[in-house]
Amino acid sequence: MTDVKHMKWWGWGVDGVGFHHEDKPGFAPFVEYAVGLDLGTAKRAGEPSFADLKVPKSNATAAFTTALVAVVGAGNVTTDDMVRVIHTYGKSLRDLVRIRSNSILRSPDVVVYPADESEVQGIVDAAIAANAVIIPFGGGSNIAGSLEPIPAEKRTIVSLDLGRLRTVLDIDADSGLARIQAGSQGPDLEAQLNARGWTIGHFPDSFTHSTVGGWVATRSSGMQSDKYGDIADIARGLRVVRPGGVLVLRPLPSTSSGPSVREMILGSEGRLGVITEVTVQVHRIPEKRDVYAYFFPNWKAGIAAMQAISESDAAPSITRVSDARETGFSLATSKDRKGFDKFLAGTVLPGLMKSKGWNLDDICLSFIGFEGAPAHATRQKSMVDAIVKKHGGMGVGKGPGILYDQKKFDTPYLRDFLLDMGAAGDVSETAAPWSKLVSLHENVYAAAQKAYDEIGIKGWIMSHMSHSYHSGACLYFTFAFVFGSDPIAEYNTVKSAIQQAFIDSDGTISHHHGVGLEHAAWLEQDISAEGVGLVRGLVGAADPGNNFNPGKIFAG
Amino acid sequence: MTDVKHMKWWGWGVDGVGFHHEDKPGFAPFVEYAVGLDLGTAKRAGEPSFADLKVPKSNATAAFTTALVAVVGAGNVTTDDMVRVIHTYGKSLRDLVRIRSNSILRSPDVVVYPADESEVQGIVDAAIAANAVIIPFGGGSNIAGSLEPIPAEKRTIVSLDLGRLRTVLDIDADSGLARIQAGSQGPDLEAQLNARGWTIGHFPDSFTHSTVGGWVATRSSGMQSDKYGDIADIARGLRVVRPGGVLVLRPLPSTSSGPSVREMILGSEGRLGVITEVTVQVHRIPEKRDVYAYFFPNWKAGIAAMQAISESDAAPSITRVSDARETGFSLATSKDRKGFDKFLAGTVLPGLMKSKGWNLDDICLSFIGFEGAPAHATRQKSMVDAIVKKHGGMGVGKGPGILYDQKKFDTPYLRDFLLDMGAAGDVSETAAPWSKLVSLHENVYAAAQKAYDEIGIKGWIMSHMSHSYHSGACLYFTFAFVFGSDPIAEYNTVKSAIQQAFIDSDGTISHHHGVGLEHAAWLEQDISAEGVGLVRGLVGAADPGNNFNPGKIFAG
Repeated sequence: MTDVKHMKWWGWGVDGVGFHHEDKPGFAPFVEYAVGLDLGTAKRAGEPSFADLKVPKSNATAAFTTALVAVVGAGNVTTDDMVRVIHTYGKSLRDLVRIRSNSILRSPDVVVYPADESEVQGIVDAAIAANAVIIPFGGGSNIAGSLEPIPAEKRTIVSLDLGRLRTVLDIDADSGLARIQAGSQGPDLEAQLNARGWTIGHFPDSFTHSTVGGWVATRSSGMQSDKYGDIADIARGLRVVRPGGVLVLRPLPSTSSGPSVREMILGSEGRLGVITEVTVQVHRIPEKRDVYAYFFPNWKAGIAAMQAISESDAAPSITRVSDARETGFSLATSKDRKGFDKFLAGTVLPGLMKSKGWNLDDICLSFIGFEGAPAHATRQKSMVDAIVKKHGGMGVGKGPGILYDQKKFDTPYLRDFLLDMGAAGDVSETAAPWSKLVSLHENVYAAAQKAYDEIGIKGWIMSHMSHSYHSGACLYFTFAFVFGSDPIAEYNTVKSAIQQAFIDSDGTISHHHGVGLEHAAWLEQDISAEGVGLVRGLVGAADPGNNFNPGKIFAG
Repeated sequence: MTDVKHMKWWGWGVDGVGFHHEDKPGFAPFVEYAVGLDLGTAKRAGEPSFADLKVPKSNATAAFTTALVAVVGAGNVTTDDMVRVIHTYGKSLRDLVRIRSNSILRSPDVVVYPADESEVQGIVDAAIAANAVIIPFGGGSNIAGSLEPIPAEKRTIVSLDLGRLRTVLDIDADSGLARIQAGSQGPDLEAQLNARGWTIGHFPDSFTHSTVGGWVATRSSGMQSDKYGDIADIARGLRVVRPGGVLVLRPLPSTSSGPSVREMILGSEGRLGVITEVTVQVHRIPEKRDVYAYFFPNWKAGIAAMQAISESDAAPSITRVSDARETGFSLATSKDRKGFDKFLAGTVLPGLMKSKGWNLDDICLSFIGFEGAPAHATRQKSMVDAIVKKHGGMGVGKGPGILYDQKKFDTPYLRDFLLDMGAAGDVSETAAPWSKLVSLHENVYAAAQKAYDEIGIKGWIMSHMSHSYHSGACLYFTFAFVFGSDPIAEYNTVKSAIQQAFIDSDGTISHHHGVGLEHAAWLEQDISAEGVGLVRGLVGAADPGNNFNPGKIFAG
């Protein structure tokens, strides 16, 4: 059988790794304060039982699986229940709740693992010939509902897993370009690049379990996008298997051939074909890479400083500022006597803040990264330091930044832990012009609170700004609540309120998670009816049989 | 009648402005050397006579023009021959030759000047109702054949001139975003921005006569794109009139809503609707802005230095290096005792170069720009200076850079002068990865020479690199020859050879002039048959009646 490794069928990451708070004394009090959950008395749910799971039967015919076996070999075609369950959902809150509550209405009927592009072509052609549905699958980390089959689908559904296409094929050192197979996961491709002195510079939260093909398919963005760009900037060349042939976009630094086909594939979520190869920009590993922490007296000052940095000559690699609530959360999840504690637990820093007239409930923690030759990094930092100072902030050194770097991929494990304990948590992020960020933040908080009030629960929401651009930035919200009798309905109420507040406050429906099913209801408000019409027209013409991941981005 | 100003019907720019070489003693000898033309004896063609021009009759019915008049008023609808001729072509070499040789097979039947977006909607809806063709028109500077009607078109053709939509509507100072009407021409919109302390930072060669809507429609790029980005980066929000409604894309710094509708409109050349408004990134006018000149011993050293700069921490606003031939041309077109001459006419610099072992026939002139706060500009320059030195180059100060700045928009006038004297000249540019640039350059020269040999003429070609990106750059070629009996056939032979060499050497068909008619034959080789299929599908679904600028980008 194939050697492709998958995440837990019921949660994030790999078996044996999970969140724990024994070494974080502030965590339990914080959870009680935020969502009213007493971790000391709450009963922890056990791991769900696969044996109890009702898995829809595969409808794949013997003729069809035989056709697939002819392409990829018997060991790489399966109708096994566990494998089909793993390929049913991504890892959104809704996905996790459904898998834990035995709610699988429709699964892929067959999972295939091609070895290379020609096998992908064989699968696609066989599927089209059989009028089957094809859902490309990378690492399975999607949280926008881009992977799940539409329950009403009667045709055979193939989950096309790219996991065996995981090689960095070539590096053009003079151009800083690397050809990478689409199924390559973050740590694996970065290790292959690092071994030759390069980095992709793309580190989304999902990095440990997501693939370069998935990043392209969902228009992903990484933590160091201020320096390296979003995947839309990084991905220069593409190969996409379409029925009967391969779409080939050679790696070009720029072109005036429009409308841009490259930008049609970016964010296409499998609806235009199967991405098999991405040529990405790569950079020499920088000599120096530091993440510094700063504090601001309040959110407005922090946002104003980030805007001033983006407008300045400084070029940091990361600009991030948490609001007061997320700052409180970060302090609470720190390990005892380490990290932030050494700054805040003593008397020096809080005393200093108070002496400046700061209200400690309003303080906002910021991380700013600097990369490059040592002299360059130092200069960027001195420019940034001056701007921070002008906006009333203060630097507190590299300690918390090191902690940030270590913990940056751990949040999804925390979500599973909270689910175990009876609390639902998820994220929703947007991007908007600088002038709208403060009011958008207020509006989202008010909308979330209104939703919590409607449900009648004590809910939590917190936020940070990340990913600075010349004209605006991303605001990233994390929300959580102790769920009642219908977690998904409750989640939908809160999530919908937040999404509508994004739109009403001049933000987009998602900065880096794609549209999928989760955000499709707001697409028309985001890009106007005429915009949706163009997308529908493009997809309808490219896939007249509606065989490629139907129902995602827009209904139909 | 409308007060929209147009360029000369037969050439570039405004009446009374033209190229002359009386103050450039090196020019005539250079022209004789390059293309064998003796300017002293060649007979200068007079301005063509409009009275002699055969203008196809307008087929617009009274009912249709009445419908248009109902939308925009009688003074803003015309079937006047001169106005229709002005709206027939752009300003490519083929356009200029055809207009001078009385070759107009098809003209727009009626020209309309709407005052605002609602009038554009009225025109579009009236045209669709009458099954007329709509060709949006900005400044008329296009050189890719994007503006001309297809001769076989039997339907009534409306040239929709955006010239009255020329206002900077609003500046969001906190976000660095300006809402600008699509018909605003470069100098006009820049003056409106400058008056409030801002700049768009977008300065294509056509700047003096092109519009922001045209820049978006053709995926334009400006001279300072290294700092400010291409128009694809600069244009954040768009309004596009479509049949029955307006496509509205709000200004967003980034979004994961894909496939990107913004990138469908960019480069759409009027095929998806009429762009009425663009929200662009604007920047505070930098404190300091300098362009420095450098010399390299040869082309390879120059390109290697530019690549090293793009990979470094330095962030110049302009990186440009001319090859040896274009360097010779630049020196020859300098004014007597000014500009370059003061560096080269004396004995110091050539002597210095020779002492370094340079061959003066190989030297390459480079311009590199620095912008920002004075300390920042100084630091960028010192980083660049070190890289230049490492690659064997030398700085020669700001004098030539000032000259470059002054002359940068004058080249199109030179082309008209050469046409007067019997020589055809035009440009063709591409972009390719750094690793391909030197071989691409060689291949293009060989292909052009082969074409000249086939025709049996002495031809010229020269080139510079501009617009650096992380993974590659733009190579811009200028070619010229004394034409014989069939200038367009001869031009096509040379132009086709150059375009095919771009493709065969891993370059794109155009870096910043769009596809139009001129480059459409190579589109499939550029983006593959499947890529053309996606573009065709998009346009076909969006414009089922084929009413919007048919025949451009792809046939049909």
